[in-house]
Amino acid sequence: MIRQMAPNMALDQRVAERQAAGEFIVHLGFGEARLPVFEPLVQRLAAGAGRNGYGSVAGDLAARSALAGYFTRRRLPTDPGQVIIGPGSKALLFGLQVVLPGDIVLPAPCWNTYPPQARLAGKSVIPVPIPAEYGGVPDPESLDDALRAARRAGRDPRILLLSLPDNPTGTVAEPEAVRRLCEIASRENLWIISDEIYRDMLHSPLTEFLSPAELLPERTVVTTGLSKNLALGGWRIGGVRFPCGNHGSRLRDDLVAVASETWSALAQPMQEVAAYAFAEPPEIREYMAAGARLHGAVAGAVHRLTVAAGATCRPPTGGFYIYPDFEPVRAELALRGVTDSASLQHELLESHGVAVLGGHHQGDDPAALRFRAATSLLYGSTDEERAESLAAPDPLALPHIKGVLAALEERLAGLIPRR
Amino acid sequence: MIRQMAPNMALDQRVAERQAAGEFIVHLGFGEARLPVFEPLVQRLAAGAGRNGYGSVAGDLAARSALAGYFTRRRLPTDPGQVIIGPGSKALLFGLQVVLPGDIVLPAPCWNTYPPQARLAGKSVIPVPIPAEYGGVPDPESLDDALRAARRAGRDPRILLLSLPDNPTGTVAEPEAVRRLCEIASRENLWIISDEIYRDMLHSPLTEFLSPAELLPERTVVTTGLSKNLALGGWRIGGVRFPCGNHGSRLRDDLVAVASETWSALAQPMQEVAAYAFAEPPEIREYMAAGARLHGAVAGAVHRLTVAAGATCRPPTGGFYIYPDFEPVRAELALRGVTDSASLQHELLESHGVAVLGGHHQGDDPAALRFRAATSLLYGSTDEERAESLAAPDPLALPHIKGVLAALEERLAGLIPRR
Repeated sequence: MIRQMAPNMALDQRVAERQAAGEFIVHLGFGEARLPVFEPLVQRLAAGAGRNGYGSVAGDLAARSALAGYFTRRRLPTDPGQVIIGPGSKALLFGLQVVLPGDIVLPAPCWNTYPPQARLAGKSVIPVPIPAEYGGVPDPESLDDALRAARRAGRDPRILLLSLPDNPTGTVAEPEAVRRLCEIASRENLWIISDEIYRDMLHSPLTEFLSPAELLPERTVVTTGLSKNLALGGWRIGGVRFPCGNHGSRLRDDLVAVASETWSALAQPMQEVAAYAFAEPPEIREYMAAGARLHGAVAGAVHRLTVAAGATCRPPTGGFYIYPDFEPVRAELALRGVTDSASLQHELLESHGVAVLGGHHQGDDPAALRFRAATSLLYGSTDEERAESLAAPDPLALPHIKGVLAALEERLAGLIPRR
Repeated sequence: MIRQMAPNMALDQRVAERQAAGEFIVHLGFGEARLPVFEPLVQRLAAGAGRNGYGSVAGDLAARSALAGYFTRRRLPTDPGQVIIGPGSKALLFGLQVVLPGDIVLPAPCWNTYPPQARLAGKSVIPVPIPAEYGGVPDPESLDDALRAARRAGRDPRILLLSLPDNPTGTVAEPEAVRRLCEIASRENLWIISDEIYRDMLHSPLTEFLSPAELLPERTVVTTGLSKNLALGGWRIGGVRFPCGNHGSRLRDDLVAVASETWSALAQPMQEVAAYAFAEPPEIREYMAAGARLHGAVAGAVHRLTVAAGATCRPPTGGFYIYPDFEPVRAELALRGVTDSASLQHELLESHGVAVLGGHHQGDDPAALRFRAATSLLYGSTDEERAESLAAPDPLALPHIKGVLAALEERLAGLIPRR
């Protein structure tokens, strides 16, 4: 059983209440792409409003065909029969944990929702630390040892979950690491779940992206959604791609069974949106590219601020997060009573008005001085400002972004007493 | 684990495929209120389209306030803090089974989704037959014995699920039965889940409705939704009301925790719809009343046809189902090789083009000759015809309804050889 609301969602609700009460909080605590809804999506939703039948559990053929095309354009040739559309990739990831047997290997730190989903599905979690260079994947060096130790302890690791690019570190694993992990997964007969919801948000077109589904197609399940790349978190549209062949199709049928008894189907008007968006007409591709540019620029700026404040931090390469480590200033922070990630999160919010999600919420060592900063809520306080941010060739030059970054800089400086 | 798609949804998809291929099937196999979307709901959906943030897990205050008002108008005074809005009552019912401890008592027969949800939640099901007069509730006479027997067998019954009015029988339990069940639940410390999604569809204003939440407010959780009363199955909007007080609020928090890790929240544009619809302005009440009238008229007509064909059947009083029993013509059916509900369902579909859901799919004795007939798909083959059905003072006089009922009469006559 789980007894607590997801800490990111709980934090967001608390911050929203305090902001509504007039407090100025630099909100880095929630991974929502806060951008205006792209107008053609509104039109598709309205166009789908007449559809009130329950529809197909796996999703309409039009939506599934579009999603199959989305994957096919990403070097993953896909038939519409290989995919399921659902109400958000969170629900699909939960369903996958229910239908895939065995225990699950998670990178540490990782998105705060994977471990409670594992608990709900009756699984043990085998955490394996991420490498120094990027997150979202266990360090390949450590994975073999961790699997052996888990088996000695009576666990049954059968699933390896990767997030590419990663929440919480905002980085994408190098192809070589993905290759080595796939070799281990193949040898150890692990299923891979590859959470690729941030895939369309690489900051540089030069960054190489390799999906494990390219290397281990028969054992890799890929999840995605429109919450991040199209800023549609509140519309709850996700998708999953199964391997072709018998194993994949059995797994797909199992997930359809769970879906039919839990969420039925993605709402029909949203299927209309999915059919349009996953087909990626030019205007959608432009919107996605503009988003990726903006996320990269602001994540990069926040990265520089935390490093300037004394942290070490992996440079962000995808998505809209950074994951700084304030270990270098542990002594100074101790003077404030800050000795671990919980007290760091608390001090930042209560004394400095900066909301972040401590590493302890994300499977990291609670004694470490690490947190996730989501940089995607800094694009303005009105839809107009946010639209301007999205359109700007240099968003860091915009007064409203400059302003919030200056406030953050000042607040971080206030956190660390002068050395 | 569950390995099969919900049989009602699987049947609906198969029928839809065959209908698309040109076959004329009298489709009584799926509980969808097939009526056009009410136009003001389309407007609310479009009005909510700008909302792309994740929002509150429990639901917006506006939507929760409306839902609280909905319950309050039904003799269940409710605070917005007592309710959760979610993506369909199916997901909410699943979440309730996850958070409520112990095993679950279900009426037999019951909606085909309750038992697999119990299995997914790791629960045992204790089935108790329904009385002769109506379904949705265990026979109070049998409940005590069943509880004792279950405990002797090492089970831990802690939850009693009632459906008022009922799917699959289309009947509503008499207040006296609800009273007696609540007495037992109180004495035995059972939680009650009262699934009231068909509540606004009583066929006669004279039918008395008593919610267990009126009698056992501190131990009853009520679920509802807009799928049936507003024909919005494909929009996936549901709600749940918890008891006030500590027990209720702890349970609510537990469900919010599960929601936050599985479905996040109802899609934001749908929250706008919920806020409007649950507030029940006059036009919504009229639409609901028109729907209830139509459902009652057609369910009554199908009831008469099955009785004329030789079945016994509880007269329907709410919702859009009937649940005939062809035991009186067992000998005649045996001549067709029909000896149980599976062969009855198969014979009706394959030899007579009538889709129904056999009782064996709904927790009933597989040897019985019973099935559920959903009568809500008979309102026409176009939105125009369906709108006409909804508006008609005497829908049975409409040619398109007359026609399908005549086809059904003929096909049922073909099933039972002349005596």
